[in-house]
Amino acid sequence: MTVKPEHLGRFDIFGEQQRFFTFFKKIFRHEFRKNGFTRLTTSVFDTEEESRMAYPDGLVMGGCPADRPEYGYVLKSHGYLTMLRAYCAHMRAEPQPVYHYTLEPQFRYLANGRGIDQYWALNAYAIGEADPILDATLLSVYSVILDDVGLAGRYRISLNSRWNTKEQERYIQELVAFFDNKRHLMTDSERVRFQENPLDIFSFESPDIRELLMVAPKIADFLKKDSKEYLANMREYLGILGVETVADDAYYADMPFFTGPVWKIELRTDEEDGSTSWRMVGSGGRFDDLARRVGQSKAVPAVWGELDSDAVLHELMKIGTRLRNKDKIQLYLIQLGDEAKKLAVGLNREAQKRGVNSLLSLGVPSLKMQMKKATDLNTRFVAVIGIMEAKNKVCQLKDLVHGTQEEVPLAELIDTIVERLGTENLDFFHPIKDLIIENQL
Amino acid sequence: MTVKPEHLGRFDIFGEQQRFFTFFKKIFRHEFRKNGFTRLTTSVFDTEEESRMAYPDGLVMGGCPADRPEYGYVLKSHGYLTMLRAYCAHMRAEPQPVYHYTLEPQFRYLANGRGIDQYWALNAYAIGEADPILDATLLSVYSVILDDVGLAGRYRISLNSRWNTKEQERYIQELVAFFDNKRHLMTDSERVRFQENPLDIFSFESPDIRELLMVAPKIADFLKKDSKEYLANMREYLGILGVETVADDAYYADMPFFTGPVWKIELRTDEEDGSTSWRMVGSGGRFDDLARRVGQSKAVPAVWGELDSDAVLHELMKIGTRLRNKDKIQLYLIQLGDEAKKLAVGLNREAQKRGVNSLLSLGVPSLKMQMKKATDLNTRFVAVIGIMEAKNKVCQLKDLVHGTQEEVPLAELIDTIVERLGTENLDFFHPIKDLIIENQL
Repeated sequence: MTVKPEHLGRFDIFGEQQRFFTFFKKIFRHEFRKNGFTRLTTSVFDTEEESRMAYPDGLVMGGCPADRPEYGYVLKSHGYLTMLRAYCAHMRAEPQPVYHYTLEPQFRYLANGRGIDQYWALNAYAIGEADPILDATLLSVYSVILDDVGLAGRYRISLNSRWNTKEQERYIQELVAFFDNKRHLMTDSERVRFQENPLDIFSFESPDIRELLMVAPKIADFLKKDSKEYLANMREYLGILGVETVADDAYYADMPFFTGPVWKIELRTDEEDGSTSWRMVGSGGRFDDLARRVGQSKAVPAVWGELDSDAVLHELMKIGTRLRNKDKIQLYLIQLGDEAKKLAVGLNREAQKRGVNSLLSLGVPSLKMQMKKATDLNTRFVAVIGIMEAKNKVCQLKDLVHGTQEEVPLAELIDTIVERLGTENLDFFHPIKDLIIENQL
Repeated sequence: MTVKPEHLGRFDIFGEQQRFFTFFKKIFRHEFRKNGFTRLTTSVFDTEEESRMAYPDGLVMGGCPADRPEYGYVLKSHGYLTMLRAYCAHMRAEPQPVYHYTLEPQFRYLANGRGIDQYWALNAYAIGEADPILDATLLSVYSVILDDVGLAGRYRISLNSRWNTKEQERYIQELVAFFDNKRHLMTDSERVRFQENPLDIFSFESPDIRELLMVAPKIADFLKKDSKEYLANMREYLGILGVETVADDAYYADMPFFTGPVWKIELRTDEEDGSTSWRMVGSGGRFDDLARRVGQSKAVPAVWGELDSDAVLHELMKIGTRLRNKDKIQLYLIQLGDEAKKLAVGLNREAQKRGVNSLLSLGVPSLKMQMKKATDLNTRFVAVIGIMEAKNKVCQLKDLVHGTQEEVPLAELIDTIVERLGTENLDFFHPIKDLIIENQL
């Protein structure tokens, strides 16, 4: 069995959802750029060897072309490895730290054997220094982005820590010791998961285990001075930046190479029955230990954040946010006959040059059907050029908002439209203004 | 053998190249939006079954996760199949035709067994009607884009036709008959290719074959009335839109499902030795026959265009085009000591809120090293807050362009920077202006 068209169709983004996606990407780019981050475009692949060293097995979505087994690769399940690879290849000689963001597809398995999922991740990274200002800044930008799109007050940020390897090891030993004689309270699958990764216990659902977690050892008690100071400093900077967080002992991000503060962002959803639920839409933290894990001799200080755009957009649309539609057609040109068509092609181009979003009607013979299309497209103006109109170089201009109709000479059509739309609704952009010599500060 | 990190590193886009890529994508989006096209975001995969039906074997880059063979897919080598799939799934009920563009990674094999290549394709499609205005419009937008980025006069567009299936079949029969007793003039590999796809002969390099092609049958002579009229109409509309093309009997786009006009765009490169070469950077045409080829009962009228952004950007950079750098840091904050650091965090945030691109210096202890970073980042202003300055709430403000230095109270720092940069160089954007109720026309 292989992937079916219907499965791939679920990854398509278009129409209203695409407009929100475009808007959200714009905010993301803007806020990170203001903070000195620049864009990085990377491969959708990781290498199989490094992925196996870095990630738990289930995340290694390897593959190779059937006829070229030598071109093995894995699909990118996270950005950590990709960013580290790009950093080591290109950025060691840059002023440190380097700041980058990516807007790219990532891949994961869907639950219950429903196949591969492609989703768009909005990631940001600061690599090359370990300073709690970086951890705080990165988190604050994500917070500003959510505020900017109108979600202030609708999300919460949980902060916890996973510290240096020694502290972690000691903590995990204590945790295992505490639960060792309580394994019979877990389900079968929880027992296996606990064996593989004891920290996973924080996501278990057995009621007895959840109760025991309240009194189980907490990692905060195993932190030494440096780790405590790092977190305290991060909190202080977050305070200066105006970002509120809650401490969450039970949040343990799931990657084995996390070493410092880790955080998650959850959106509040008000359900129809009056209840409230929280959905995780973002996460971040420090992963200094990844470089050593994939075989490098030295650690590379690295902090990252990630936001699942699909989840945020879903909530934005759900709470009734609406967007200005820049793609909206302002003038729809309906023509009947060859002569009219040629006139319409020229008028369409002229309209666009003058900043009017215009579109030619095509392929439907009857005027009635073409008018229906104009209504479906929600255009304001319709210009109809029939056979007689083409001969007399005029058109019937309809204003669908005001319900008027009048005959207008074709030579005056675009002037008329421009005047009625108003300059503020025209689309002016010319690339030449970006094409200037550098060093303009 | 599997893919190595160095191989993936070649797909990374950052720094100057990324800035050109961003600029180019902006132009692309803008021009197509003006023409009524909206963005579509799709899967990086196609289904294996449809790819095998649609594309020649070499383009089916299938794969599946090693541990989940049931999740088979192929990497997208072209956009045709993806667009057709999205159209059939979501867009049949929209006003026809639908206009979409995509900016996504695609995949191909590198020559000489050097592995898989990931590149970014700028594609556009008009689906649902067959009208030569669509063919002409699509090509004209690509032409406007190249003019907009300053490449006017540096490219040429070749236009040819591959018509309905019957005409094609008759032509191919004649072509095979003409060359049947001349196969000994081909190389061994050319003979194989001729057997598999006779139209491939137009790219053969054997001198005798190239000479014979001048007198071989031409497809133009096999076109019937409808096909001739379609091309003539497209040419007439191109004339109205001001797009110049050259007729090229020898350009046969390589997909078996092309049915109508096909075109390619080549950029002129002036070599250092004074010679001139042409490099193909874009192509397009009509592929109405794809739907039937993948098993659908009815043809779907479809026209497409594609531009290889890497190739165009390479040429843009080569001819000395320069871009305004919006990512440039305007204020660099250097601090020494804990107190100074906290002050700097707050100032940095204030600067950003006021539209100044500012950045904190981190992690380097000596002032000299931090100043070197400021120079490397090519910033205009540097504010130094030492231990004494922090105590007195002042900073040393350096203007690296004018070579000046003065002491400025921290409370006045951002006002001073804003004034000296000038409003036109500040970065103002607030998403709230996009968040308005719809139906504003």
